[in-house]
Amino acid sequence: MQLYNYFRSSASYRVRIALALKGLAYDYMPVQLLKSEHLGESYAAVSASRLVPLLKDGDAVLTQSLAIIEYLDETYPAPPLLPGDALARARIRALALDIACEIHPLNNLRVLRYLVHDLKVSDDDKNRWYRHWVETGLETVERQLASHSGTGRFCHGDAPTLADITLVPQMFNAQRMDCRLDHVPQVMRVFAECMKLDAFAKTQPSACPDAT
Amino acid sequence: MQLYNYFRSSASYRVRIALALKGLAYDYMPVQLLKSEHLGESYAAVSASRLVPLLKDGDAVLTQSLAIIEYLDETYPAPPLLPGDALARARIRALALDIACEIHPLNNLRVLRYLVHDLKVSDDDKNRWYRHWVETGLETVERQLASHSGTGRFCHGDAPTLADITLVPQMFNAQRMDCRLDHVPQVMRVFAECMKLDAFAKTQPSACPDAT
Repeated sequence: MQLYNYFRSSASYRVRIALALKGLAYDYMPVQLLKSEHLGESYAAVSASRLVPLLKDGDAVLTQSLAIIEYLDETYPAPPLLPGDALARARIRALALDIACEIHPLNNLRVLRYLVHDLKVSDDDKNRWYRHWVETGLETVERQLASHSGTGRFCHGDAPTLADITLVPQMFNAQRMDCRLDHVPQVMRVFAECMKLDAFAKTQPSACPDAT
Repeated sequence: MQLYNYFRSSASYRVRIALALKGLAYDYMPVQLLKSEHLGESYAAVSASRLVPLLKDGDAVLTQSLAIIEYLDETYPAPPLLPGDALARARIRALALDIACEIHPLNNLRVLRYLVHDLKVSDDDKNRWYRHWVETGLETVERQLASHSGTGRFCHGDAPTLADITLVPQMFNAQRMDCRLDHVPQVMRVFAECMKLDAFAKTQPSACPDAT
């Protein structure tokens, strides 16, 4: 397998964690987003969406981190990243989407660039925007973790799932941007549990071959 | 089943389509987003996330439209909304996420409000922002539809899937906001095919009991 990705892309980090949890080896193919390599001709030949991450598994070309992880879970079932019955799986997916749809898209590099370049938003306002969506979004996740009996050592139960895989990269962004985190104790507890595991720790941005 | 939703919320519309395709009956529970009913005490008692849509199926409480639809597909398998092998399912999910993660979150009501109230963006700039993410995002979807042999009468094959369910509500937003659409002929063709089906047509915003 080959994973086209970028060390600081949190969607990329999700897939690195999933591959590590499954024990799957892959070639690390760096795509330098800050240099806009994803928009260049050579990457366009690989990816119709021009986004990272992208996974090649033999002839198969897969995009969108959550779709890639669902594919990995269906193709390489152990350990399960979406364990349990339909209701448990729905809860895990909803927690992942609370991050992947409600927080992450608002703080993507291209969105921040549009704010600054097209809307002429100041750096201070841009950073306030970033923190606003992280802090309010994580508050929603906190409420779901605190109010549900399914929460265990991890977001759902006592083994890492798609929810934790989506949460941890978001926490790296939150810390890097100095977001307030004292209002989300359950989130912080789960984050600390995840980081005890090699699959999360050894794939983190600073440990990547393209880290600068 | 009870569906808490709002006629103009495109995430709500996704779930209405899925329920209709499955032939499942439900009580329509309107939540007036423009009046901020989703932030009030009575809805907080129902929903920890305070977002719509929310589906109650017996004792089960489900949030996040894509997670709800995956749950419906696992619990009420016919007709399948994620048909085929792992690779086909990954493509369908990726197309859905190209809309649900890359377009829709940027044009949510709360995001538009933040632009206007907190960042003091003009109405013209807000509308330009809206169109920018729709037009560039649909261009990505168009490239995926045009470049892949899996595209059929619908986004994937000849029956509607999760990808079409996510695409159609986005098209209603695109038309309502006068977005440019002449650059996405495959998208428009699939949209027209979907609207021939009752499951899409009879659940559209203007047909909802809370439509104004």
